[in-house]
Amino acid sequence: MNVLEIIAKKRDGLALSSKEIEFFIQGLMSEKIPDYQAAAWLMAAYIQGMNAEETTHLTYAMAQSGRTLDVEAISPLAVDKHSTGGVGDKTTLVVAPLVVSAGLSVAKISGRGLGFTGGTLDKLESFPGFTSDLSVDTFMENLSRYRLVVAGQTPDLVPADGMLYALRDVTATVGSYPLIASSIMSKKLAVGAKSIVLDVKVGRGAFMKTEEQAVELARILIDLAGSLNKRAAAVISDMNQPLGLAVGNALEVREAIDTLRGAGPVDFTSHCLTIATQLLLLSGQADEEDEARATLKKLLLSGLALDRFRDLVIAQGGDPAPVDDLSLLPHSAVIRRVSSPREGYISQLDARVVGLTAMDLGAGRKEKGDPVDHAVGIVLHKKTGDRVEHGEGLCTIHARTDNAAEHAKASLLKAYAWRDSPVEPPPLIYQIVR
Amino acid sequence: MNVLEIIAKKRDGLALSSKEIEFFIQGLMSEKIPDYQAAAWLMAAYIQGMNAEETTHLTYAMAQSGRTLDVEAISPLAVDKHSTGGVGDKTTLVVAPLVVSAGLSVAKISGRGLGFTGGTLDKLESFPGFTSDLSVDTFMENLSRYRLVVAGQTPDLVPADGMLYALRDVTATVGSYPLIASSIMSKKLAVGAKSIVLDVKVGRGAFMKTEEQAVELARILIDLAGSLNKRAAAVISDMNQPLGLAVGNALEVREAIDTLRGAGPVDFTSHCLTIATQLLLLSGQADEEDEARATLKKLLLSGLALDRFRDLVIAQGGDPAPVDDLSLLPHSAVIRRVSSPREGYISQLDARVVGLTAMDLGAGRKEKGDPVDHAVGIVLHKKTGDRVEHGEGLCTIHARTDNAAEHAKASLLKAYAWRDSPVEPPPLIYQIVR
Repeated sequence: MNVLEIIAKKRDGLALSSKEIEFFIQGLMSEKIPDYQAAAWLMAAYIQGMNAEETTHLTYAMAQSGRTLDVEAISPLAVDKHSTGGVGDKTTLVVAPLVVSAGLSVAKISGRGLGFTGGTLDKLESFPGFTSDLSVDTFMENLSRYRLVVAGQTPDLVPADGMLYALRDVTATVGSYPLIASSIMSKKLAVGAKSIVLDVKVGRGAFMKTEEQAVELARILIDLAGSLNKRAAAVISDMNQPLGLAVGNALEVREAIDTLRGAGPVDFTSHCLTIATQLLLLSGQADEEDEARATLKKLLLSGLALDRFRDLVIAQGGDPAPVDDLSLLPHSAVIRRVSSPREGYISQLDARVVGLTAMDLGAGRKEKGDPVDHAVGIVLHKKTGDRVEHGEGLCTIHARTDNAAEHAKASLLKAYAWRDSPVEPPPLIYQIVR
Repeated sequence: MNVLEIIAKKRDGLALSSKEIEFFIQGLMSEKIPDYQAAAWLMAAYIQGMNAEETTHLTYAMAQSGRTLDVEAISPLAVDKHSTGGVGDKTTLVVAPLVVSAGLSVAKISGRGLGFTGGTLDKLESFPGFTSDLSVDTFMENLSRYRLVVAGQTPDLVPADGMLYALRDVTATVGSYPLIASSIMSKKLAVGAKSIVLDVKVGRGAFMKTEEQAVELARILIDLAGSLNKRAAAVISDMNQPLGLAVGNALEVREAIDTLRGAGPVDFTSHCLTIATQLLLLSGQADEEDEARATLKKLLLSGLALDRFRDLVIAQGGDPAPVDDLSLLPHSAVIRRVSSPREGYISQLDARVVGLTAMDLGAGRKEKGDPVDHAVGIVLHKKTGDRVEHGEGLCTIHARTDNAAEHAKASLLKAYAWRDSPVEPPPLIYQIVR
């Protein structure tokens, strides 16, 4: 076998065999295939696409490029959720302890965000001492004991994905659906939860701009999961405006804790219940949607879900005190309210602009390795469809400096649009794909 | 401007502006654009194509990546020929001195072959002392004095082409017509002959397998020449079987000298006269094809064309003695005749097999930088359409060892096919594209 033939085959739109895909991934790992050949292959795969079999082979080959963990052996009811990413998306912080309180297990490998705000790990690091850098033994032990573990990606876990993703990022080949799908699923395959709910975001603040695109990716992911002997469902959810009200690491932790107490924003609470319900249905722990949802609501109100969250913080070395006293979370020096310059109905709240503003405040990373400021961010008071009076608060900025707050204010005023007549808020969920 | 946007634009099949193409080539030269980004761009360009404007911009940007020589200033009648490459193609050795003897100038930058046999430079190096490594001053002086110079590619001449070609070679992107065309024409633009005849080969021993492909590439090249303010015509010629009878460096020099004396093989002589005639017509030095051809024939028979060849060898440091005594050319230790195992008509003589056999004998390079054996090769006695008796000579092998000759014999017997009934020889020229 020869790498040039493999590149040429994909270039000409032909399907690669499992042997060819394995040869390619192994060549990449052993550095026999240099990055310029991998780059040419990625571009060919982007333009010509990959069929379902190729995507499955690629996913297997990538998962096998490093260590794999047999989570199922310890936790047969292990489930996972995966979001394609958005602004204010702190869903994992709520859904993971919630479904654990309902009897499931969650063994999650999570990332650090590049862009709007930090990832789940950054958010959890708002608790002093919290670590996601777990040995395999600790990972397995925590899973067994708490049925809940959220660890960081390690270099020995799906290293081929790390290499390919770094290359896709600098060769304009990130947006290929089969490459996205195999990247996501190779990690799920290496750390094997059986049931996975995909939260596919669509809109201004998401990678997918239309519902059709989101459904297409969802179908690829669900088919791929099936061919990998896993069950998956996808929730196609709105990301035209941010999810919930808080955008920023500690601010989102606060909102997650409120939600775990049953006192979160209505839209975010509903979103979390939808994802958690799908996980219960998918894993066979519930048969009926309404019933599952009612059970989950009770687990929020009872404090049992919050107990599991507290477990998680403690199990991974964090100080749990802020769970019960939110004032102990990191907070910013400058807190500034942004008032509405006019009255009317909010007709738009651009998630992308809010996200970029949060990043500029320091909540997210512009470059890999940048530090994240846990305290800064934005709390929204008005979202699309809301009525606002002139001078009433639109949102509150949490910033390091007056200057940063001023910049953020100017930017956020551009994120909003107003109309005189009432506005229908966008749907939270467009559809569920199974 | 941003390299990722340029890659993404080509990926999505959009046309790049001249500024974007310049930015890309300059980034490549300054090493601001790494090879993996160039590789992704090349694959996108291969699959999505480039329109005529883009190809022109790329050609200009590449030509401007290094030194340029104003050949026209010294030699207004400078012409050039370019072959897309084949087996037994020693056309330059004849056509260049021939058109010089007819009043034109030839300032040629030539390559070293990778594959079947050496390139024009390797062939000329059969003359002891001959060098193609000329300073710009010597190049210009020789051009002015002899109206004929054949130099090697230097690193400061179109360096972007050198970089891109090396990358195309290892990323399965060699075969893109716009990339081929801009590679060829950027070198013609940097060392500027005004009139160019393209010898586009088609068949088993050529890159182009069908006449349609060859015509398509020819049209791209001619249009590109026009947009660069040059005149070009293309001769679409056969490469199903080798051109002429000799395949190998010194063996081809011998055949070229015979031809320059008017005693060359009929097919090769005719091919050279066609190319030379087109050069006379294109440069406006002849109006009528038949008349031009008759004039050129006389120049062969008079020995005037051979005088110009002798000039070339002497001007570039070579010992001209072999021109007048062919026995002084390098020769092989082992010379072996291959006899026909049956009688009949030759129905096929596979140029590719003959070429690969010559390469195995040592006439060509498998890897860049390999040495070339000037003496070895093959002389054909029978070509497609010829009648052959059982035991009659098909060809003669010139080899270093008995073993190499044995291998070559087995291989060459597979290059031939026979039929009982008469066979029409393939046409020499399919068409001329203007």
